[in-house]
Amino acid sequence: MADNPIQITKAKSATDIATIVGLIGGFGLVVSAIFSGGSPKSFINIPSVMIVFGGTFFITMMCFSLQEMLRTLKTIMKTVSYSSRDPSEAAIQVLQIAELARRQGVLSLQTLLKELESEPLLHKGMSMVVDGTPGEEVEVVLKKDMMSTIQRHQKSASVLKKAAEFAPAMGLIGTLIGLVQMLGNLSDPSTIGPSMAVALLTTFYGAVLANMVFSPMAAKLERNSGAEAMVNGIYVMGAASVGRQENPRRLEMLLNSVLSPAKRIQYFD
Amino acid sequence: MADNPIQITKAKSATDIATIVGLIGGFGLVVSAIFSGGSPKSFINIPSVMIVFGGTFFITMMCFSLQEMLRTLKTIMKTVSYSSRDPSEAAIQVLQIAELARRQGVLSLQTLLKELESEPLLHKGMSMVVDGTPGEEVEVVLKKDMMSTIQRHQKSASVLKKAAEFAPAMGLIGTLIGLVQMLGNLSDPSTIGPSMAVALLTTFYGAVLANMVFSPMAAKLERNSGAEAMVNGIYVMGAASVGRQENPRRLEMLLNSVLSPAKRIQYFD
Amino acid sequence: MADNPIQITKAKSATDIATIVGLIGGFGLVVSAIFSGGSPKSFINIPSVMIVFGGTFFITMMCFSLQEMLRTLKTIMKTVSYSSRDPSEAAIQVLQIAELARRQGVLSLQTLLKELESEPLLHKGMSMVVDGTPGEEVEVVLKKDMMSTIQRHQKSASVLKKAAEFAPAMGLIGTLIGLVQMLGNLSDPSTIGPSMAVALLTTFYGAVLANMVFSPMAAKLERNSGAEAMVNGIYVMGAASVGRQENPRRLEMLLNSVLSPAKRIQYFD
Amino acid sequence: MADNPIQITKAKSATDIATIVGLIGGFGLVVSAIFSGGSPKSFINIPSVMIVFGGTFFITMMCFSLQEMLRTLKTIMKTVSYSSRDPSEAAIQVLQIAELARRQGVLSLQTLLKELESEPLLHKGMSMVVDGTPGEEVEVVLKKDMMSTIQRHQKSASVLKKAAEFAPAMGLIGTLIGLVQMLGNLSDPSTIGPSMAVALLTTFYGAVLANMVFSPMAAKLERNSGAEAMVNGIYVMGAASVGRQENPRRLEMLLNSVLSPAKRIQYFD
Amino acid sequence: MADNPIQITKAKSATDIATIVGLIGGFGLVVSAIFSGGSPKSFINIPSVMIVFGGTFFITMMCFSLQEMLRTLKTIMKTVSYSSRDPSEAAIQVLQIAELARRQGVLSLQTLLKELESEPLLHKGMSMVVDGTPGEEVEVVLKKDMMSTIQRHQKSASVLKKAAEFAPAMGLIGTLIGLVQMLGNLSDPSTIGPSMAVALLTTFYGAVLANMVFSPMAAKLERNSGAEAMVNGIYVMGAASVGRQENPRRLEMLLNSVLSPAKRIQYFD
Repeated sequence: MADNPIQITKAKSATDIATIVGLIGGFGLVVSAIFSGGSPKSFINIPSVMIVFGGTFFITMMCFSLQEMLRTLKTIMKTVSYSSRDPSEAAIQVLQIAELARRQGVLSLQTLLKELESEPLLHKGMSMVVDGTPGEEVEVVLKKDMMSTIQRHQKSASVLKKAAEFAPAMGLIGTLIGLVQMLGNLSDPSTIGPSMAVALLTTFYGAVLANMVFSPMAAKLERNSGAEAMVNGIYVMGAASVGRQENPRRLEMLLNSVLSPAKRIQYFD
Repeated sequence: MADNPIQITKAKSATDIATIVGLIGGFGLVVSAIFSGGSPKSFINIPSVMIVFGGTFFITMMCFSLQEMLRTLKTIMKTVSYSSRDPSEAAIQVLQIAELARRQGVLSLQTLLKELESEPLLHKGMSMVVDGTPGEEVEVVLKKDMMSTIQRHQKSASVLKKAAEFAPAMGLIGTLIGLVQMLGNLSDPSTIGPSMAVALLTTFYGAVLANMVFSPMAAKLERNSGAEAMVNGIYVMGAASVGRQENPRRLEMLLNSVLSPAKRIQYFD
Repeated sequence: MADNPIQITKAKSATDIATIVGLIGGFGLVVSAIFSGGSPKSFINIPSVMIVFGGTFFITMMCFSLQEMLRTLKTIMKTVSYSSRDPSEAAIQVLQIAELARRQGVLSLQTLLKELESEPLLHKGMSMVVDGTPGEEVEVVLKKDMMSTIQRHQKSASVLKKAAEFAPAMGLIGTLIGLVQMLGNLSDPSTIGPSMAVALLTTFYGAVLANMVFSPMAAKLERNSGAEAMVNGIYVMGAASVGRQENPRRLEMLLNSVLSPAKRIQYFD
Repeated sequence: MADNPIQITKAKSATDIATIVGLIGGFGLVVSAIFSGGSPKSFINIPSVMIVFGGTFFITMMCFSLQEMLRTLKTIMKTVSYSSRDPSEAAIQVLQIAELARRQGVLSLQTLLKELESEPLLHKGMSMVVDGTPGEEVEVVLKKDMMSTIQRHQKSASVLKKAAEFAPAMGLIGTLIGLVQMLGNLSDPSTIGPSMAVALLTTFYGAVLANMVFSPMAAKLERNSGAEAMVNGIYVMGAASVGRQENPRRLEMLLNSVLSPAKRIQYFD
Repeated sequence: MADNPIQITKAKSATDIATIVGLIGGFGLVVSAIFSGGSPKSFINIPSVMIVFGGTFFITMMCFSLQEMLRTLKTIMKTVSYSSRDPSEAAIQVLQIAELARRQGVLSLQTLLKELESEPLLHKGMSMVVDGTPGEEVEVVLKKDMMSTIQRHQKSASVLKKAAEFAPAMGLIGTLIGLVQMLGNLSDPSTIGPSMAVALLTTFYGAVLANMVFSPMAAKLERNSGAEAMVNGIYVMGAASVGRQENPRRLEMLLNSVLSPAKRIQYFD
């Protein structure tokens, strides 16, 4: 392959169906369990919905700012239709660029820059290399960039984690309100059951919100951030290697050190 | 823009309405849930208020000193009417100063120092640069300064976190007192309900205090501290760069590495 | 032994019976406790099974991707029939190679490479040494490789940890659904007991799944990962030492520093 | 001030009333809540006291040694009558010494050594400087000293934290004993209430011990340790600076970097 | 003392009675509370014992291997009859050796090596010094050795911690089994109490096992590991100092930096 004219492959986009399937499957099971009990209506109570959903929203807003919550929402949307490059593909692309630079000189990368715009970090690194920035400097700047990206993702995940923390707390507060109201008014024993049921609803809502929405979403964000960081790490290695004008074979060996066995590449015979 | 006479922009001040809106919204929902139950009076019990609010106050005081608790209160007040510079603005201001220093020499910054007094860290850094301190030394001193600021913020947040830990504990203690009193006196069954209701009130107060006041406040303090650290980090990078007499274009590249994509600046053409 | 012609010993494979014995023993005790109560049927409830097992599966899938869950399953299978080299054996093998390289030159290792293929990291390191890579470089590349392996293991363990976190949560959600249904329908007191029993089943399933399957499996994965990292650490030390053409006696001393007292080797006289 | 003959100010001693006031206030509220219920006697049960107080004592002793528990007790006593130097005062004292060393030579500090004996770390550092130890060495030794002090404090705090962990556990064990005894003997319904009340007492004792005594004490120890470390950090900076014969103005700048804005000093004009 | 002929003092062995006294005291209180209730038999239930003790054993075995559990048991035995050198004694011994090496040359330590065999790390370090290994190398190897020892101790502690985690979980599982069996069979109300009592027994066993056996044992192991690491750290400092042929007075100063004030030594006038 190393003898063909170099051609940069495109990143494939993949919809992350795991999030959607998991969400639908999980809620489907809960809803069917509710319906199988006969009276689905008893699981809907507007004041309980208000105190758990609204309360969690307002308290999470206290912790952050509205802007950060909207940004998290946007990140969640991106999570559903996630497109992450395959690490192997990224590694091969980086090796193609490194080989081109080795054969035709670093300036020949100029023509590639436009094609790389879909991968901002790689584009930035290669632009720096073309501008003659030394490899060490390229590595320092790209790593800083990568770190700030990871920190931004962690911030979005931390909004969801806080929400996952406050939802059961609001559920508990709602249940305590219901219990105090019920206990202060025990004259008619026939109302105890339904009152208790309503009081428990907020705990139920809180548990569902936290464990079936916020926690998994936060975990997914962190996972996607890790996957992106892996690909970006490959780009940083590649740009630094080209900037240092190293042998692409050494780069291949380094890349294979971070790739999982199943993803390892063999670019040079 | 780089050709205009240099003019330092002022930091915009912004009230952080998220804290107030969140607080009012959250408490509004809880209070309306209480009123919708008909007997809001049953949610007020002076001894319960005393043991949870007073107890949390006294135990938190045991952990710290009165002085630290007052300082935390002051920090909370500052949190409500928070004014943090936008990172982009801070970056542009730093670049303006760097360009001025590049064109007219470091001593020309002397005249700017007064204007920078609203941003203590930037002022300190630039004063050091004007005094001829080398860039490395400027960076070391400013980073130490930044670290101590972050530590002070964490201390204030830790006061709130301790309070958030002790409030539910005092609620539990109050509820246990109520339960023991009630159980020792079961002769009249009609009093069981109301006694239980009163016993649960301290748990309710504790949960509300911890989850709707102390925890979100602590999270907000940490978030604001992070935002301030970001802006201060930009000032440190700028002052160190000017102190090392580097090319402002390199500074711009470094600053863009830490700014989020939406906040990135393009100061030089 | 140091005077014999060098012969590379093979790694012994050992089935890890602890996992199987523990699993069977634990479940045996639980099942016998259930049977001793007379009515084992009351412990099986299909909707409860669905909501806990299915729910945990779907929510864990939301956090990761189907591919990662399958990979974790494969890793679990490997855990049951685990074959890890004994650290002492690995150390002796490394010393044998180091002595061979010392006596007959690094190139003589060429003939050994094929035999080492069952130990990928050692093979990679020795190939690099034969290719003339300097010892420092060998160490850097192998350590990167080792770190990525550890990270991959931690990812598999984190899938199991998330499942161990969500299983009791789904159990709680199922129990809350059961309680709300029961409390809304208290007319016939004779049904309260059985309804409560069914409601508690999901909590029971969640506790069993989390504490008797997912948590111990995650701990086992981490333990095996640590054992493998220990052996790999020995390979890295060996390859780096051979690459630096150090005295094998120094290598023996270093290896003994990381081996536990009972596993220490005395290869030279 | 810099022109006056140098005079070393003494550290002011301050009793830490926050601990005592907090302790008395917290217990006062709990006791008054108990008395307001009418039957304070029902809150005292000797076997319950034995199992929680004694049990916590014995189990904590299992974790440590009697010697360490006594040392922790001594440290707690010191916490109540705590005397920590004000960081500003410490900084000024250090600057006074630095200026003296600058003007009259390092050997002139010989006469000061006796006065510094109340501050062991400063004394040690200045003795080393007078003995001609280079600044880097002074810094290394003092930092090691400071670290070991912090570790010792953390050990004392960890004794209290363990106690705070075991007290509620012993409370739970006591309550379970009470419940099992009560449930096995339900023939006379009139005894159920009082038996439950007694059973709950151990939970109550455990919660009070952990949250109103051990936890706040541990937090206070850590806070005092932090305050002492701050002052010691100033001494280390000072001794190292004098040892390196640096300009005291640079020392002032460094000290102000770690002091909080309100505590900053302006020693030179 | 520095003028006497050098004589190496022996380490004193001390039985750690705190563990035994704590264990007996704690269990004594629990047992006496049980007997004071009149019917100690109701606290013994063989199936409950099986599910908690057996279940915890099997699940912990799943996490580790039988070999590791046996090693932990051995370590626990050692904990009971623990003999740790006093740090002061260790420091004095190290200074004696350092002085001997200073006066009569490093080779004179040869004769001491046999006596040092009871302290493996000191023996290893001094052997290396006698063999002419440079001080830096001695420090690196000994620190690696010390780190692996600490890691092995942490592994044993982690076995106990896992057991402390699983014991209450098995208790909960047992209680849920008991509750489900009881609730499915409510026809005879007189059996409810005793059935509940039996169901709670597993929770009781789990709480006792975790909080009165496994947790304190794990804490003790960690504490002993820390004490041993302190003494070993003194040996490392000593061996490195002798290997670097430094002045023993400098070593004394360094040793005093890590010793607690009460343990500080004054070996040289």
